[in-house]
Amino acid sequence: MSIRIGILGYGNLGKGVECAIRQNPDTELAAVFTRRRPEDVSVLTEGVPVCGIGDAVKWTDKIDVMILCGGSATDLPEQTPEFARMFNVIDSFDTHARIPEHFANVDAAAKEGGKVGIISVGWDPGMFSLNRLYANAILPDGKDYTFWGKGVSQGHSDAVRRVAGVKDAKQYTIPVEAALEAVRNGENPELGTRQKHTRECFVVLEEGADAAKVEKEIREMPNYFSDYDTTVHFISGEELKRDHSGIPHGGFVLRSGRTGMNCENSHLIEYSLKLDSNPEFTASVLLAYARAAYRLSQEGQSGCKTVFDIAPAYLSAKSGEELRKIML
Amino acid sequence: MSIRIGILGYGNLGKGVECAIRQNPDTELAAVFTRRRPEDVSVLTEGVPVCGIGDAVKWTDKIDVMILCGGSATDLPEQTPEFARMFNVIDSFDTHARIPEHFANVDAAAKEGGKVGIISVGWDPGMFSLNRLYANAILPDGKDYTFWGKGVSQGHSDAVRRVAGVKDAKQYTIPVEAALEAVRNGENPELGTRQKHTRECFVVLEEGADAAKVEKEIREMPNYFSDYDTTVHFISGEELKRDHSGIPHGGFVLRSGRTGMNCENSHLIEYSLKLDSNPEFTASVLLAYARAAYRLSQEGQSGCKTVFDIAPAYLSAKSGEELRKIML
Repeated sequence: MSIRIGILGYGNLGKGVECAIRQNPDTELAAVFTRRRPEDVSVLTEGVPVCGIGDAVKWTDKIDVMILCGGSATDLPEQTPEFARMFNVIDSFDTHARIPEHFANVDAAAKEGGKVGIISVGWDPGMFSLNRLYANAILPDGKDYTFWGKGVSQGHSDAVRRVAGVKDAKQYTIPVEAALEAVRNGENPELGTRQKHTRECFVVLEEGADAAKVEKEIREMPNYFSDYDTTVHFISGEELKRDHSGIPHGGFVLRSGRTGMNCENSHLIEYSLKLDSNPEFTASVLLAYARAAYRLSQEGQSGCKTVFDIAPAYLSAKSGEELRKIML
Repeated sequence: MSIRIGILGYGNLGKGVECAIRQNPDTELAAVFTRRRPEDVSVLTEGVPVCGIGDAVKWTDKIDVMILCGGSATDLPEQTPEFARMFNVIDSFDTHARIPEHFANVDAAAKEGGKVGIISVGWDPGMFSLNRLYANAILPDGKDYTFWGKGVSQGHSDAVRRVAGVKDAKQYTIPVEAALEAVRNGENPELGTRQKHTRECFVVLEEGADAAKVEKEIREMPNYFSDYDTTVHFISGEELKRDHSGIPHGGFVLRSGRTGMNCENSHLIEYSLKLDSNPEFTASVLLAYARAAYRLSQEGQSGCKTVFDIAPAYLSAKSGEELRKIML
């Protein structure tokens, strides 16, 4: 019997989960839940019901894992604890500073419901966090570096779109190649914000807007741009659509460390991602952890977990025996 | 109380474990065991007893985890099961084809003794295996690539040393940059042996040896060199000592895969290591898994495990709370 997955929230991430399910024959899509009117939502997979979020409670014995595909700002802090009382759940909560609080809320709810909740799944937090942990455990005497990009930052794109005179925009975060190289060379550089990333904006202006003023406002925007070297390009709506419709992302996690009686030997551990579609990749990670949540739940476990708490074998559809034979 | 570590076998790997213990304050070196005469072995850490291997049985309640630092050809297949009856054990068994058999033997012995045995720990098998597993679970539709080097292959160096007329030698395995780039570009190339790695030998000749004959014999050696493009450099004993005394290694694990309703999006996951000292890095991984073995044993678990079976948090000296706060 395959693992019955529910998707809550049918945006880019929810659609990504739907696609990932098709690549994992031990999983099936049971239903999609939405806050919109269900009749307004049409999903890609034939025969899958779309339900109002309020109907989820009727699905508790027809869904093995609910994957929550809402946003971290307001959706997940509410939804994940609420649904963890009824379902095994996975979310991609990514507000790093609020993870301890979110963990505590989900843990209490999941224990109450006898369910497993795995939070902050994706690539950062997620695969990047795992690589930080493994590398730190192996090389306790060392230095961590995380670079993001080249990729689209939704938050920064939104910030540019809020500038008066901007009709539409996309913002790319770009790691500074020289900084990456310095880390790879074992120089252990101290890198400030400006040394690590640059920002590049592609902006479509409203008719009659003052380009120079818009550019200045973007480049001087506190928190988002003022600490970075930012380039602003003005392009047409057609160009934006043609050249900047994708949602690529990626990045690098590096740890440079030393071993030896006199710390005489240097080592570099590097993990990197180059992703055509940030939401589809994140969704693929979510689905692998849904498999883990299902198995942990079958074993009788409950409570909140993170990627740190899950033995890797739980993520794979293959048996332990098969994994040892072909992948170890 | 810190975790009391025993080292069995005091070669490069055993010394590496000894160094790693100094970087991990929650561990301490209890004793070193050797097949040599203990009085002939002097260890780097003051006050640590060196014992004959036969005395290990007297240490069962003074050692929490025994790290087995012997070779995979003959030592570990015997030693790991034998010691898993008495101690929690870690080994770096790396004969990939014999892992299932070794696993079964260690599992039976460890269960008999109520101990935890973690086998095939290091970087390949080990960290590379983990990265293959994670990447496969996330991107089921994709292709794996592993490249080794640039680094010293002990097996190939030994093979060169066995050629008549060779006094001493070091062999480097080098990944072919163009092949790596093709993988990174998402070309999914089919790569034969010769396309992935080249081999470079630095050879010191015996007096009067025929260089051309030695070079031909090396380059045509079946299994070791005949399937590769091999370069042979003749150098002096002084040059070998000055320029090739290190034991660097490293490599790359890549998975290139696709997602999307029509597999329209490509993704690349890359993990790489650049190591000044292969044995010291391997030893550092062994020690992190010794921490895990100790904790699993404290929880009452027993039997054989691999890196696939160990939740990442067990490797870190930090608490779950701390990890979530600073690394997730």
